[in-house]
Amino acid sequence: MEYVWLKDKIISRHDAYVHFDDRGYYFGDGIYEVIRVYDGLPFLFDEHFERFLRSAKELDMPLPYSITTLKENIRHLLQKNDIKNGYVYIQMTRGEQIRDHLYSRDIIPVITAFTKEAEIPVTKQTNGISLLATEDIRWLRCDIKTINLLGNVMAKRRAEDYYCDEALQHRGDIVTEGSSSNIFIVKKGVIYTHPANHYILNGITRQHVFNLAQEEKIPIFEEAFSLEETINADEIFVTSTTLEIMPVINIKGSIETSLQPGTITRKLQQAFKEHTHAG
Amino acid sequence: MEYVWLKDKIISRHDAYVHFDDRGYYFGDGIYEVIRVYDGLPFLFDEHFERFLRSAKELDMPLPYSITTLKENIRHLLQKNDIKNGYVYIQMTRGEQIRDHLYSRDIIPVITAFTKEAEIPVTKQTNGISLLATEDIRWLRCDIKTINLLGNVMAKRRAEDYYCDEALQHRGDIVTEGSSSNIFIVKKGVIYTHPANHYILNGITRQHVFNLAQEEKIPIFEEAFSLEETINADEIFVTSTTLEIMPVINIKGSIETSLQPGTITRKLQQAFKEHTHAG
Repeated sequence: MEYVWLKDKIISRHDAYVHFDDRGYYFGDGIYEVIRVYDGLPFLFDEHFERFLRSAKELDMPLPYSITTLKENIRHLLQKNDIKNGYVYIQMTRGEQIRDHLYSRDIIPVITAFTKEAEIPVTKQTNGISLLATEDIRWLRCDIKTINLLGNVMAKRRAEDYYCDEALQHRGDIVTEGSSSNIFIVKKGVIYTHPANHYILNGITRQHVFNLAQEEKIPIFEEAFSLEETINADEIFVTSTTLEIMPVINIKGSIETSLQPGTITRKLQQAFKEHTHAG
Repeated sequence: MEYVWLKDKIISRHDAYVHFDDRGYYFGDGIYEVIRVYDGLPFLFDEHFERFLRSAKELDMPLPYSITTLKENIRHLLQKNDIKNGYVYIQMTRGEQIRDHLYSRDIIPVITAFTKEAEIPVTKQTNGISLLATEDIRWLRCDIKTINLLGNVMAKRRAEDYYCDEALQHRGDIVTEGSSSNIFIVKKGVIYTHPANHYILNGITRQHVFNLAQEEKIPIFEEAFSLEETINADEIFVTSTTLEIMPVINIKGSIETSLQPGTITRKLQQAFKEHTHAG
């Protein structure tokens, strides 16, 4: 049996029903995190919950439990489902209320979580993936990890329809991020990625790449780059909790280019691997 | 007992649970309509379902029933709940699927609906309401009536926190719309409202106002207007399915102004009343 966490209980996924008056269902009024698990241990656990807390604050949502309790419950769920390698998804909506744009500050948030076994996408990490470059039409608070994800969902579907693995979103000429990943380019030995402002989600793996680059003594800058700079990049890679560090070998759509996984991408992949093995 | 419609059944609201693997709950991946009911009859029923169909198409969602069946079910629900004056809310999410940004085209949408008794807000329609002018940070497909409503929800809460009834959203200097209403200004006997493009939802009541203005021989234009033009307007009103035609007497926030309900607003309110009485 597969277990999930719903409100105060750990129950069968089969029985995981929420009331349709949940604001998550009417407004997408909620936040989430996806946390990687290696050898049974959640990776960058604190960092994910720091961001979870920040998202809640930005949306004026209280936390019904302490972070400590949330983490204990997640660990318990991972044990119940015997997850060795995979991830855990945790979501919190504002709570149940008769539908009204105006939310009450007296309702209790609804927390749900599930786990999934998932292998590291090793083949893709070796060979690289393709991106579809498409206009970023999302709202201006992409820094909050909310479940208002239609822009990302439509970009992802569009990418797949063009036989691409992921989207590359750009706002006008400026590359922002993927549909569920951050984008980096390498030019003359220097790594660039979009600043962590309102236009992108500050990925936990993205933040981790800054640590890895410093360890490896590779210069890295938060500096927005254009579509043209992307075409002229020496290396391109994307990062996310599930993809880790993933080389890009092909871009279609608004721009077109092909390239090979580069030495800096490989170095970062290797350093990432060592970190996850170290627990 | 209060009845709601959930998937294929009419059941008690108390029992209205949806599975947490519903994409509406993970991604806000769904659309909706709110339809006014006068004397037991849905008002502008066809227009609402035309838009529902358009929203579904824009989001690449199939309809599990014909529009005729949907309308029959809504009528049936209204009868079961014995709604004389109020509204009906209908929502359709893409369906249930293990969480993945990439949606499958083989899942069956989940339809839910509820009704609510509601009086016409006569006192407010007489006295007028106040708006909080606040930056519009929503995505660039506001023309689709989706349940990705966090931008609207946060604007509405902000308005209430400033003791205002509704938000006035503006993108830079240009006024777009309310949090759940369209905005009109009157200057020298001419009505202006934002064009029905990707920046606003083309409200059914908004469209109806064009008919009413033509009947009353009042010139009306789809022309964007600035914050300054709003301050200098002779009249301001907002429209929505539940507010109908509502004069604005006060604006706070990015701009500040006070004014009185004007003659053109009153004419339109009167014409609207006659239309709804005519069924």
